[in-house]
Amino acid sequence: MVKLVATLGTSPGGVFETYMNLKSGNYGGEPVDIKEVYIIRTSDKAVELAWKLVKAIFVCCGSKEVEIADIPLPINDIATKEDYEIFRKGLQGKISKGDYVDFTGGRKAMSVAAAINAIRNSAYVVTTIIPQNEYNRIQNLIKQLKEEEIEEAGKGKCINKEKFCELVSKDARTILLT
Amino acid sequence: MVKLVATLGTSPGGVFETYMNLKSGNYGGEPVDIKEVYIIRTSDKAVELAWKLVKAIFVCCGSKEVEIADIPLPINDIATKEDYEIFRKGLQGKISKGDYVDFTGGRKAMSVAAAINAIRNSAYVVTTIIPQNEYNRIQNLIKQLKEEEIEEAGKGKCINKEKFCELVSKDARTILLT
Repeated sequence: MVKLVATLGTSPGGVFETYMNLKSGNYGGEPVDIKEVYIIRTSDKAVELAWKLVKAIFVCCGSKEVEIADIPLPINDIATKEDYEIFRKGLQGKISKGDYVDFTGGRKAMSVAAAINAIRNSAYVVTTIIPQNEYNRIQNLIKQLKEEEIEEAGKGKCINKEKFCELVSKDARTILLT
Repeated sequence: MVKLVATLGTSPGGVFETYMNLKSGNYGGEPVDIKEVYIIRTSDKAVELAWKLVKAIFVCCGSKEVEIADIPLPINDIATKEDYEIFRKGLQGKISKGDYVDFTGGRKAMSVAAAINAIRNSAYVVTTIIPQNEYNRIQNLIKQLKEEEIEEAGKGKCINKEKFCELVSKDARTILLT
């Protein structure tokens, strides 16, 4: 069973678009039947919020077949070698042969750690580019969301499909690196 | 002969600090005798400026033994699969076994491409973290530099040692990833 494993930072952007583009083959390869999505992230407050948005987007705009799993690691950032080691170890056993690893979100050292793990486990490495104007549009929409809306949506119940699906970019391009 | 190969973005920060920390063994490993530094970058104007600053910093604050080579690629950003391919191909043949690859600067896809190339060629992967307050201090100093000063310094002549060496952070931490 093929998984999508994605790093996440303070913005939800990218992972749902990657999932959709892989499913539809809109990345220059064959359509990929992804049944599970792992989100690997720090425990920073802003990142926690981004996770809730990702969850809401998947629940509101994705298919019901996909499972989405949250993997928060006990660090708030990667500022030291120790932080990096915790992140690297947190990746262990998560990425299998044939999985897709999306490094779009999070700190650069997280992205590189995930890509290295992917290469070593014969997984594919992908990223999704969201045009700047689309990114700005989405960031503005996020600012307008109420905290309760995000909290509710983050519990896995779609409370406003239209609103949350507007956070998805139709112009996102997914690139297969390896 | 061991090289340091670094990606570069719009800020010069990181690569000189990585070089110094590798030279002195201040990264948790043995001191590394680096004789050559390759800077891999796009041809964007702001990145061009960052290259001139890097050159000035090495000339003013480094030892005379190190050679620094500029490798500008014919793209301004990584916005498409084609851009990525040009970047990836630009890396080919640049990274050898035992080299050190610093992915601190530039777009995330550039960092990941460089790290993947490093892994495949049995090179080491490093990054340098500059504390936020130091980063801000340096950015402010850069804004105060005159264009002519940067142009002159970028030609490889140290016109103001004190000024350019202030752009180096003493609190930068280099992490060896693999």
